[in-house]
Amino acid sequence: MIATNLENRNGKLFFARTDTAELIRAFGSPLYVMDEGRIRANMRIYRDSMAAGFGGGAMPLYASKALSFKRIYEIAREEGIGIDVVSQGEIHTAERAGFPMEKAYFHSNNKTDEDIAYAMDKGVGYFVADCGEEVDAVEKEAARRGMRQKILLRLTPGIDPHTYEAVSTGKVDSKFGSAIETGQAEAITEKALGCPHIELAGFHCHVGSQVFVSDVYMRAARVMLTFIKNMKDRHGYAASELDLGGGYGVRYTEADPVIDIAKQIGSLSAFMKELCGELGIALPSVRLEPGRSIVADAGLTLYRVGSVKRIPGYKNYVSVDGGMTDNPRYALYRSRYTVLAAEKLDEKETFVCSVVGRCCESGDIIQENVSLPASIARNDILAVLTTGAYNYAMASNYNRICRLPVVMIKDGSPYVAVRRETPDDLIRNDL
Amino acid sequence: MIATNLENRNGKLFFARTDTAELIRAFGSPLYVMDEGRIRANMRIYRDSMAAGFGGGAMPLYASKALSFKRIYEIAREEGIGIDVVSQGEIHTAERAGFPMEKAYFHSNNKTDEDIAYAMDKGVGYFVADCGEEVDAVEKEAARRGMRQKILLRLTPGIDPHTYEAVSTGKVDSKFGSAIETGQAEAITEKALGCPHIELAGFHCHVGSQVFVSDVYMRAARVMLTFIKNMKDRHGYAASELDLGGGYGVRYTEADPVIDIAKQIGSLSAFMKELCGELGIALPSVRLEPGRSIVADAGLTLYRVGSVKRIPGYKNYVSVDGGMTDNPRYALYRSRYTVLAAEKLDEKETFVCSVVGRCCESGDIIQENVSLPASIARNDILAVLTTGAYNYAMASNYNRICRLPVVMIKDGSPYVAVRRETPDDLIRNDL
Repeated sequence: MIATNLENRNGKLFFARTDTAELIRAFGSPLYVMDEGRIRANMRIYRDSMAAGFGGGAMPLYASKALSFKRIYEIAREEGIGIDVVSQGEIHTAERAGFPMEKAYFHSNNKTDEDIAYAMDKGVGYFVADCGEEVDAVEKEAARRGMRQKILLRLTPGIDPHTYEAVSTGKVDSKFGSAIETGQAEAITEKALGCPHIELAGFHCHVGSQVFVSDVYMRAARVMLTFIKNMKDRHGYAASELDLGGGYGVRYTEADPVIDIAKQIGSLSAFMKELCGELGIALPSVRLEPGRSIVADAGLTLYRVGSVKRIPGYKNYVSVDGGMTDNPRYALYRSRYTVLAAEKLDEKETFVCSVVGRCCESGDIIQENVSLPASIARNDILAVLTTGAYNYAMASNYNRICRLPVVMIKDGSPYVAVRRETPDDLIRNDL
Repeated sequence: MIATNLENRNGKLFFARTDTAELIRAFGSPLYVMDEGRIRANMRIYRDSMAAGFGGGAMPLYASKALSFKRIYEIAREEGIGIDVVSQGEIHTAERAGFPMEKAYFHSNNKTDEDIAYAMDKGVGYFVADCGEEVDAVEKEAARRGMRQKILLRLTPGIDPHTYEAVSTGKVDSKFGSAIETGQAEAITEKALGCPHIELAGFHCHVGSQVFVSDVYMRAARVMLTFIKNMKDRHGYAASELDLGGGYGVRYTEADPVIDIAKQIGSLSAFMKELCGELGIALPSVRLEPGRSIVADAGLTLYRVGSVKRIPGYKNYVSVDGGMTDNPRYALYRSRYTVLAAEKLDEKETFVCSVVGRCCESGDIIQENVSLPASIARNDILAVLTTGAYNYAMASNYNRICRLPVVMIKDGSPYVAVRRETPDDLIRNDL
């Protein structure tokens, strides 16, 4: 099994010590299932190893975009970590969950004037300003309110993490941030330092997610710490925070390596402390922004099989009762996932097929070249593993299909964290 | 301009005789705008030319998946056409709009037992059964109710329409339908004819959408009419309906050809009548299933520009206040769209840029290599044309971004057809 919260008990798939077939019978199909214990454990790995390595001021920020609903923010609050938010919707959800908004960092490459006012209304602690125009817009709104807003500046360090294109955001050619290489990073630093209603807390970069190459964060840290030293030398400005984005890769298939996050953070902190010594600067308070590595392996999706189609001489298709509406990542990125027949784990997987969704769209594919038991048939249960990140978050109502509920398991007991949508929900805004 | 409902009046973009800048000021940004008159005109082209060419029994079925909300079904009802639906959600929406459900055809490659019962409860006229398992499931439920259900059988004619992969669905290797070539089509015909609670009305195929190659429907019709003749000869079964799917291509950019749909349908009907004569069979009652070509050019999306980022030596980025959440088609398929600066139509378009969305995702791109006026700046309005199909329908709440409203224009007056989502809508199902 690709994660330790998965077990084969007499051919049946157990997740978080719970029989997945029982879950689908109790809560209906299809279904997202989340392991609350795993979410907390993943948060603690970052929290505790950052505190140990970097000192007490360091803190992980949960990257909400991976998975956002009220319960997630309650858990983040209880675990004492910060959050990264990117929209009014995420801010609203966190606030309604009672999250302390001074620990929220407001990202996005494009904050509208309304977004900025909204976030200030809600007391969001930090704005991560993407470019000069955003610095101006934040200064203007803060001045109007007679307040001083803490910000970080998002910089592009020119690092290519060698992950796939869609998650490579630290290169100079990016819609995000201001490039160090072109001088634009220094220019907006000067701009921010000159704004009376802005408190420049430090800098941010994000070199991409699903990072397995161990030296990526060290390369990014070297560029950023060198920039911090240069700003100290040239402008007398000592950055107090450095946010390196996030996060470490997760295992979608057996081919993905196992990452020891605590060990990685230990090495990174040792590297950064030594480098700060060499550069003659104090170690800033460090932030990391894990999202995927907090929730991905804490989730799976359960489906029921519909038709099983054998086209002699061509291909086999197994249709499920969900699809790109609940998991668009194969359609978008050809993402790999592990698919199991949840009640037939002990049967030989000799039937090679495409697992496809129920949408009227040829691109509606969950995974190609899946090996399932030859006995696979209508009403069997399929589990797609490691779907906790970027599945519920990216879900749509395409084909007017209702979004799935999220059932969370705590200490072996399931509870509903997000209710299943109904057809009435779909027409709520139709006039 | 790529469509006749677009005008340049003194440098300002008018759509359906309405100033687009006024719309965004009145209804907020971003915004979907639809031209009700164009939707009706597009429906009438199919309705009237099918009646003229094929005779009174012929009828277009609006393919709901392109765009589904209540108002669309009211318009379809008023125009006297049928609909194609694929889910409980689409059925529910159509029913609540007062659509006569006997004119609804229920598609999908995977109807669950619950879907089948739901559709029978709502009096859906026709089921389009995808394979033998679905024939069995429909027979079982109809028997339980002591009724007889009309169905079509979805066949794959083995036609590759030479459109892009994701909309090529008529090939033998497809998740949809049962192949004629492999004998599976004949097998399910025999199965359906042997079911006492099923009335086999005829056959369906769909060779893909966005079809520009004029002989595609003729090739499909030849395969399907030959199959109908074979079924008559071998099983004494005369199909009364033939549904050829849909539809004709639409213009996303100036490079796309203009299609004269009425003329195409005229040629197709002449071809099919002649072929029926040669085959010695009666012309069945014909159905086509246009979706994109009904709503695409009846819609556009308006955004406000956020940051304009010039990265010397690399690239330029213009961020808008929407993105892949309201139009995922570039992210999914690298789809081409035409982008205009709605109040600067008379300025020279010398600034080449990527128009990107506001999501925290590098793949969140609306269009690459867009030429805009060099004066483009924060708060300018951009219009993305031909977004009526597969935009609102495929929208998500990724990044917890609220979905846009749909403002419809009728006789020059705008009205709200779908309200803008609010942050409270997003947490409605969160517990």
